[in-house]
Amino acid sequence: MKKYTQVFQGTAFSSKSPEEVQILKDHLFCINADGMIERAVAPEDADYEALLDLYQGEDNFHRLADGQYFLPGFVDLHVHAPQWAQAGTALDIPLYDWLNTYTFPIESKFSDLGFAKNIYQDVVSTLLANGTTTALYFATVHKEASVLLAKLCAEKGQRGLVGKVVMDNIEQTPEYYRDADTQTALADTEEFILAVKELAKSTKQGVYPVVTPRFIPSCTDDALKGLGKLAEKYDAYVQSHCSESDWEHGYVQDRFHKNDAFALHDFGLLRDKSVMAHCNFLNDDDAALFAETGTAVSHCPISNAYFANSVIPIAHLHSKGVEIGLGSDISGGFSPSLFDNARQAVISSRMLEDGVNTALPADERGVPHSRITINEAFYFATAGGGESLSLPIGRLTENYAWDVQIIDTALPSAKLPIYDSNEDLHDVFQKIMYLVRPENIREVWVQGEKVHSRV
Amino acid sequence: MKKYTQVFQGTAFSSKSPEEVQILKDHLFCINADGMIERAVAPEDADYEALLDLYQGEDNFHRLADGQYFLPGFVDLHVHAPQWAQAGTALDIPLYDWLNTYTFPIESKFSDLGFAKNIYQDVVSTLLANGTTTALYFATVHKEASVLLAKLCAEKGQRGLVGKVVMDNIEQTPEYYRDADTQTALADTEEFILAVKELAKSTKQGVYPVVTPRFIPSCTDDALKGLGKLAEKYDAYVQSHCSESDWEHGYVQDRFHKNDAFALHDFGLLRDKSVMAHCNFLNDDDAALFAETGTAVSHCPISNAYFANSVIPIAHLHSKGVEIGLGSDISGGFSPSLFDNARQAVISSRMLEDGVNTALPADERGVPHSRITINEAFYFATAGGGESLSLPIGRLTENYAWDVQIIDTALPSAKLPIYDSNEDLHDVFQKIMYLVRPENIREVWVQGEKVHSRV
Ligand SMILES: [Zn+2]
Ligand SMILES: [Zn+2]
Repeated sequence: MKKYTQVFQGTAFSSKSPEEVQILKDHLFCINADGMIERAVAPEDADYEALLDLYQGEDNFHRLADGQYFLPGFVDLHVHAPQWAQAGTALDIPLYDWLNTYTFPIESKFSDLGFAKNIYQDVVSTLLANGTTTALYFATVHKEASVLLAKLCAEKGQRGLVGKVVMDNIEQTPEYYRDADTQTALADTEEFILAVKELAKSTKQGVYPVVTPRFIPSCTDDALKGLGKLAEKYDAYVQSHCSESDWEHGYVQDRFHKNDAFALHDFGLLRDKSVMAHCNFLNDDDAALFAETGTAVSHCPISNAYFANSVIPIAHLHSKGVEIGLGSDISGGFSPSLFDNARQAVISSRMLEDGVNTALPADERGVPHSRITINEAFYFATAGGGESLSLPIGRLTENYAWDVQIIDTALPSAKLPIYDSNEDLHDVFQKIMYLVRPENIREVWVQGEKVHSRV
Repeated sequence: MKKYTQVFQGTAFSSKSPEEVQILKDHLFCINADGMIERAVAPEDADYEALLDLYQGEDNFHRLADGQYFLPGFVDLHVHAPQWAQAGTALDIPLYDWLNTYTFPIESKFSDLGFAKNIYQDVVSTLLANGTTTALYFATVHKEASVLLAKLCAEKGQRGLVGKVVMDNIEQTPEYYRDADTQTALADTEEFILAVKELAKSTKQGVYPVVTPRFIPSCTDDALKGLGKLAEKYDAYVQSHCSESDWEHGYVQDRFHKNDAFALHDFGLLRDKSVMAHCNFLNDDDAALFAETGTAVSHCPISNAYFANSVIPIAHLHSKGVEIGLGSDISGGFSPSLFDNARQAVISSRMLEDGVNTALPADERGVPHSRITINEAFYFATAGGGESLSLPIGRLTENYAWDVQIIDTALPSAKLPIYDSNEDLHDVFQKIMYLVRPENIREVWVQGEKVHSRV
């Protein structure tokens, strides 16, 4: 009797450690009815041939073609779903204008469910097509539209973690786009949590509510306190922005005489299921608090170039034991692809290490030991994201979800420069990480279900 | 009687100045038998309707579909064609190892014409598919394979400027990969120039020989001197690497007690038709010499993150009157796309302006006034590249070559987030620059001929 729902045969890349990528050559991945990898079988394993004989030729047996590889699906730890409508625009203007002239007006339109549906459908489909199988979303202040986003993730098969945004501080938010008042913000958040928990019961890949204060400046003390309590009551995920830029970092110092990390912690918002975006200006005490509470950093390298006034010392934070994943930060970051963000994470780290200003001597220009490798960037985009969310995702190994992208390096319209059929697989991996385009991503599976394909 | 070979109708984006992008809404572009834009006619011009009546419905009339736009083809000012075979690999290792373990062994294989043909075909096709209509190539030391690259450009319809690389300094080159001796290097270069000039006679879009000392360290004084004379004798293009990294900059100081710019100038290698790659460490005197001699900088932002130890102060150099274009620097840079490089040029400039080290106060972190806009990056990728080469390319205006990319923003598999059919065209332009993938580039034309299409 055949016990597996699907069996896949092919070569996969998966993080063994942050530094090391494991090559699972010609493995059999045996998927069970829950969409989990029940077994990953190597050719040298005893029952490989028997399994192959049993499943080969069946409808649920999938063998990769030459030039195709499995990668784990990406985990995007920071996406503003409504901002997809303006991705790529207005990045030349200052943050204040960007928020007030572009971002808040767009987000305010999501009171209209028809408008919301149009854009939310696209952003979920676009992320799937870019290999993102799990996404941690900021929606808007609107409860109904935020539930709709969770529903669209559920329908399209993406693992969505969704937050209704809270912004109730009238001093830092425009009148046309904020919660009605603190009580409404908290009541809407609780109703939102309950609605998404209900939806989760019928969603195979999982869908999760996220407590989401936009960032400290946009929230009153009472809202932050109430949200901390809701996070505890429902053991919910928490997301926000933390120590992103000089201005924001300074604002929190003025208001609380402490850094964001400790202020958020005072409100009960740093928890094992917390993910904080950016975090460029964390100091070592902040980092220790993150490590202690299990709070993860969502590193958004493209966005940081525009709005964070610096490069986050990600290698240093990682060495301090902080959990780290990657975020696209659409639309502070323009790209919906974590391939693009992984590339920029490496590039930015090199710029931090070497420094930027040619007028300085080499030994005063940069910050030594800041670089990360493409292997580490891959880790952040996959296994690191999974650890940040405390979910069994981001690795192609037993007891992890079957969340994969099937990469075709030999696609005629977007062939990677691989000329030797015996090319070292570590080089193939690097070419994939640096050169893959969305069209090379032929299929995407989440929790054992095919959710995207190109034919 | 119909006098134009082709007539195109649609909306185009083209640089009016480095800062300003001109929107040519619903223009008619009338192309003559030489592949030049003889007229660009606006809807309000007197004979627009008459021209439309005359050509509409004919085989040589092309009207863009909704959501499609014309961009000028890109001018890539720095590509190592043989290195396409290793693009994306080994970027985590130091330059010395990268050259000796990867790059020189690969380049040495181009003595084999079969091997060369395989890879050179791919690189030319790949660049065309990425919208690059003109490319300035380094080939290898091998004369025959370098001529082959020029022939493949000619055949595939790309405007190729190709250099046989000179490396004759036995102290800085490996025995298995260098010119036999200085005399051979110079004789091969001269034969190469003559062969490409002959080929040019039958090549509509142009193909040009380029005098190409790899960089000062790899050449003897006699070679540099001889190459300067050949450049003058044939009024040829010149390319090299200049003041790229701390090591290279220091090497030239040790050998000549001056910066690269003045050393190259002494050998007659800074001319109006010279393009120097990288140039991160130019000082103001070097920049003045560049401006005076008409030497252009090929800015390679992705590659610089790995090998140049700094961000080039490109806004400053531009303000000093230096001509600037963009280069992919395959494979020091991994991406064959000038879209990717334009994006990185903006990002890198922001990092230079804001600085990178969060441990420094904001006012000591960066270099004020260093940022460039996406409009300027677009200018460098198009009109700036054309000016650097002193060719009438990179703008969609009268008396320029019809070198264009047709961008489809509405392609179902890679739709850009444009939801309003009246969206401001400046926003559409920015979305194109930040979000286009190769699959959005539906057709590429060079000198009035279609050289790439996706159907
Ligand atoms: Zn954000
Ligand atoms: Zn180069």
